[in-house]
Amino acid sequence: MIVVLNPNSSAEHVDNIVGLLNRNGVDNFVVPGGRQKTVEVFGDINGLDRSVLESLPMVERILDRGGPILAVDRRPDDATFDIPLGNGATIGGKKIAIIAGPCSVESLNQILDIAMAVKEAGAVALRGGAFKPRTSPYAFQGHGELGLEMLARAREETGLAIVTEVMRCDHVELVAKYADVLQIGSRNMHNTQLLAAAGEQDKPVLLKRGWGATLDEFLLAAEYVMLQGNRNVILCERGIRSHETYVRNTLALAVVPEVKRLSRLPVIVDPSHGTGRSHLVVPMSNASVACGADGLIIEVHNHPKAAWTDADQALDCDQFTALARGLEAFAGACSRTL
Amino acid sequence: MIVVLNPNSSAEHVDNIVGLLNRNGVDNFVVPGGRQKTVEVFGDINGLDRSVLESLPMVERILDRGGPILAVDRRPDDATFDIPLGNGATIGGKKIAIIAGPCSVESLNQILDIAMAVKEAGAVALRGGAFKPRTSPYAFQGHGELGLEMLARAREETGLAIVTEVMRCDHVELVAKYADVLQIGSRNMHNTQLLAAAGEQDKPVLLKRGWGATLDEFLLAAEYVMLQGNRNVILCERGIRSHETYVRNTLALAVVPEVKRLSRLPVIVDPSHGTGRSHLVVPMSNASVACGADGLIIEVHNHPKAAWTDADQALDCDQFTALARGLEAFAGACSRTL
Amino acid sequence: MIVVLNPNSSAEHVDNIVGLLNRNGVDNFVVPGGRQKTVEVFGDINGLDRSVLESLPMVERILDRGGPILAVDRRPDDATFDIPLGNGATIGGKKIAIIAGPCSVESLNQILDIAMAVKEAGAVALRGGAFKPRTSPYAFQGHGELGLEMLARAREETGLAIVTEVMRCDHVELVAKYADVLQIGSRNMHNTQLLAAAGEQDKPVLLKRGWGATLDEFLLAAEYVMLQGNRNVILCERGIRSHETYVRNTLALAVVPEVKRLSRLPVIVDPSHGTGRSHLVVPMSNASVACGADGLIIEVHNHPKAAWTDADQALDCDQFTALARGLEAFAGACSRTL
Amino acid sequence: MIVVLNPNSSAEHVDNIVGLLNRNGVDNFVVPGGRQKTVEVFGDINGLDRSVLESLPMVERILDRGGPILAVDRRPDDATFDIPLGNGATIGGKKIAIIAGPCSVESLNQILDIAMAVKEAGAVALRGGAFKPRTSPYAFQGHGELGLEMLARAREETGLAIVTEVMRCDHVELVAKYADVLQIGSRNMHNTQLLAAAGEQDKPVLLKRGWGATLDEFLLAAEYVMLQGNRNVILCERGIRSHETYVRNTLALAVVPEVKRLSRLPVIVDPSHGTGRSHLVVPMSNASVACGADGLIIEVHNHPKAAWTDADQALDCDQFTALARGLEAFAGACSRTL
Repeated sequence: MIVVLNPNSSAEHVDNIVGLLNRNGVDNFVVPGGRQKTVEVFGDINGLDRSVLESLPMVERILDRGGPILAVDRRPDDATFDIPLGNGATIGGKKIAIIAGPCSVESLNQILDIAMAVKEAGAVALRGGAFKPRTSPYAFQGHGELGLEMLARAREETGLAIVTEVMRCDHVELVAKYADVLQIGSRNMHNTQLLAAAGEQDKPVLLKRGWGATLDEFLLAAEYVMLQGNRNVILCERGIRSHETYVRNTLALAVVPEVKRLSRLPVIVDPSHGTGRSHLVVPMSNASVACGADGLIIEVHNHPKAAWTDADQALDCDQFTALARGLEAFAGACSRTL
Repeated sequence: MIVVLNPNSSAEHVDNIVGLLNRNGVDNFVVPGGRQKTVEVFGDINGLDRSVLESLPMVERILDRGGPILAVDRRPDDATFDIPLGNGATIGGKKIAIIAGPCSVESLNQILDIAMAVKEAGAVALRGGAFKPRTSPYAFQGHGELGLEMLARAREETGLAIVTEVMRCDHVELVAKYADVLQIGSRNMHNTQLLAAAGEQDKPVLLKRGWGATLDEFLLAAEYVMLQGNRNVILCERGIRSHETYVRNTLALAVVPEVKRLSRLPVIVDPSHGTGRSHLVVPMSNASVACGADGLIIEVHNHPKAAWTDADQALDCDQFTALARGLEAFAGACSRTL
Repeated sequence: MIVVLNPNSSAEHVDNIVGLLNRNGVDNFVVPGGRQKTVEVFGDINGLDRSVLESLPMVERILDRGGPILAVDRRPDDATFDIPLGNGATIGGKKIAIIAGPCSVESLNQILDIAMAVKEAGAVALRGGAFKPRTSPYAFQGHGELGLEMLARAREETGLAIVTEVMRCDHVELVAKYADVLQIGSRNMHNTQLLAAAGEQDKPVLLKRGWGATLDEFLLAAEYVMLQGNRNVILCERGIRSHETYVRNTLALAVVPEVKRLSRLPVIVDPSHGTGRSHLVVPMSNASVACGADGLIIEVHNHPKAAWTDADQALDCDQFTALARGLEAFAGACSRTL
Repeated sequence: MIVVLNPNSSAEHVDNIVGLLNRNGVDNFVVPGGRQKTVEVFGDINGLDRSVLESLPMVERILDRGGPILAVDRRPDDATFDIPLGNGATIGGKKIAIIAGPCSVESLNQILDIAMAVKEAGAVALRGGAFKPRTSPYAFQGHGELGLEMLARAREETGLAIVTEVMRCDHVELVAKYADVLQIGSRNMHNTQLLAAAGEQDKPVLLKRGWGATLDEFLLAAEYVMLQGNRNVILCERGIRSHETYVRNTLALAVVPEVKRLSRLPVIVDPSHGTGRSHLVVPMSNASVACGADGLIIEVHNHPKAAWTDADQALDCDQFTALARGLEAFAGACSRTL
């Protein structure tokens, strides 16, 4: 059982509730961190009446299990949060936002070339990895801060917002210095320490679903971020692992309308990782918009075959331009625009 | 290794090739049935030159493994097959076809009510189970031939084509007497005997992907049907099993553009089984059309909460009418119509 | 809701209960077939008191959903059913039974060679496919009745019981004429018609779990057989599909102790299909026995590399002999014998 | 393509190879960190002869892809590494090692009680979480350093080695101060930064497979640790996610013999997380030993029903004692001891 205290509860309020539980012989634990204090209670609360707990002024609510609260705080008529990207664009409103760019930042020329092309085609943000979570330690791990500097330069040239991945708690500050949106990748969706660290800074967080994660775990990962005070979380579906072999991942699009039913958080789709095949990116982008996605994040490279990473799934700049044009009709069918 | 003979090869041609293989000491097996004869060859063909085999006049081609041939017989510019449903409507052309109706035929009134409503909303065919493959033997197994008669009556009243499931080889003739399209369900996608039996009659076959089947197995199941001479196979994606729990199945829509790339067979989507949740049927229908599906098959019931089977996923008639209207914009975005 | 009638209920008893339900305006359906009659009731039973139904003399019990009854009919101290194989051997008792043989019956010499070798090594039954459910229609489909005759000949020579697959309802009688145990393969676990047909004859049924089936579906498939009066069902775990790629299937051994907890049916394991790799068959056989399996079914071929089907997973005869000897220690550790 | 340099290559050697690649116009990247330097080469090496690269004295070998090197460095007759736990016990030799203890360290009394019981029953190491990666931020996150101190106290009292989880790079030093073995949990198997940080200290690392990870990814995670110089990695199978619902995870035991075939690293099994059901822990422990596991890690609690975390899967102390006794016969069947 979880006792959630009011956001403005003081340390003294927490002590009071812990004292009450202790006097009643009930094991309990004050969950550390988080702007909204919570106390987990173990075992039966025997002599202690639940309604007594609920009636205490510092108690906001009592939950029977540790599901998400902030991530699903919506009523049927609530609009999706409109999350500002820092360059005037937003994710979550009527406009469908496209984030595009290479898997990895390889060189300044490469990132500038791609940035100008995707800007021209209608993207609002540039993606590109400077810190790369690679399966093999023998593979390119990203240019690190040098890559971040190249991204910042691309922002100067194009006005695109920068979306880039952060992989460790002690890099959050560094990445947040250069990026407009911090990406937490699929491999780190369960890295609760990193989630909390991202929640302690102010830039929006793009959170990708783990390929083996349930919807509940996905929303609870968002909760880890939000509980630290950063409510600007953008969820991203990027495919799950299944028995299918003709694709790199199984893009599970039903999560889009389900997240929008449960939550006010915007949700976007990554059809590049979600299929791993460049020839499937256009149809799955169209499908993503059709089922309600608030945006897309797409791998684009100026020379896909020579890409240092993820060559099979990147579009070239012309293919991306065609994708963006083709999307307009589907956005229109949803009464939205690009 | 598979030796595929020309379609017009005689029994004597087959004997000749078998004799040649035997004289060279090569194990071989003439695959029974099928209008196009094939011979499987085992082990190394040692002394026998492959080019000798390829140069024989009765040999059409030689395959290194048993992949599909007929199901993937296309060139890049080929159009999808346009499969006639018997009532003037087709599946596979510019028009997106909607098949709708209840999971089970429960009563004549029920099926007539639903048929009239879905016809009015724009469906071209009526689905409804008379023979039901239920997980439990204690659950309703369908009304059998009585159910087929009710479906035929609904066709008379509405002009809708009838799509209904066949579950055993010795029922194929009976079901084909009443139905316009024979459905082979997910549980029977690997039932090679039933596939071949459906290939021996003339009505189109709606083949649903097994929830644990790969794409290759799906196409090879179609091949079992087509090899008997019936090329009118409609493929249907209906969701796969995965670790996800908020849906009944994970609708894996990328299979739609991939099938269309590989094959001329039309492919439709069942978002009702593919999600198992009625509130997800509309967005996933829109997504299906957006990624290129040639049609939809949707569970509709006049009183969903009282449905004898699959109550959680059925739309009511008004919801279905709204779905069909909403689809028009997405069809238009694909330069198609309903 | 399912009303289960006493096994000795007459047609009149069924009529009475249906009449009662109809008079109360409750939709209902008498489940066809089965020696123990059941009536499925739909919707709310409004005015009708459930306790009234329960108190009727012809009603055995009332179930809220269609779970298995016969397959899970055990009390904690019940022993596993001891199922006779026809040659004096049994499956389900203290002795661990080994079924061995090739994937396919290829020739009389092949099957006799293998039969003698596996008999010598301690197998009690011979497996071998005469009707083969192949993924591709271009692959060897089995020798059919000719293969059954070869198996019968191997029984004459060795005294081994014969286990072979049946794939269609109208072949049940034919296969039962030759076989001692009818195998229903993974691809047909959901083929409810075939399950019922196997339940109508007297030979034991070896039922393999579908690779995408849940445990509940597995037990309900056994229920389909048992409901027709044939209680001699042997369950077989043979691996499920997952995201793993180094094996053909993921052998999910925990199902063995779980089935034994729930049911009195014996359960065996197929480590050949369950891994698809011959070098993994021995360790997984040992593990199967260690977690409580009542037997094993193992692919053995006299020349594995030349096997017409499943060459990667077959042991040669010497490897099988070594496997059987090695198992003795593990059987002993379970207080069992081979 | 990956160029692996000799372990004793100097910075100058690295510069030389990079210079050579640059002069030939080949994109390349020196992988940061690691005691054995590697250079990733992108695209075609056109004019540059691969044999030239291979013949350079500082080049150890050239790989076509980034598979594991150190983790799979074995010849057929190599024994498994024998990894010392710090208290005289080892993992990887003839003796099967049992690690046991609660999911979470709850209190000093709790951990001492359990430690004494599992020591008495034959465990060589104590597990217990001080930092807990919980799905929900509202759930108990562990006592942190206080928990580590309690574990150290339990070591003093019992002589058991301490195995406990580390969750972030900047905690590695702290946890290594108290623990004998650092555990990296399933949620962090893809956390490459944490893996590398654990590789930079000297205590053995217990690495659990991610529930959605392939075998290749598992071995490459070990490679991340080993490349930093720490070769003492213990692999742990703990179940994968699948469509099964009666268990928390699907314990995929075939990975045990496959890892032992490929690698000299010891591999143990966690049947507690691997099933999530206490009644399945004993049979799956027996099966683990039977297929070659070098040890087990088992959740044991003095009052399982009152456990703060994972109550469904913990054994009580008596059940654990019985498990350990029962294992002796299976260890004996493998010519091993406890």
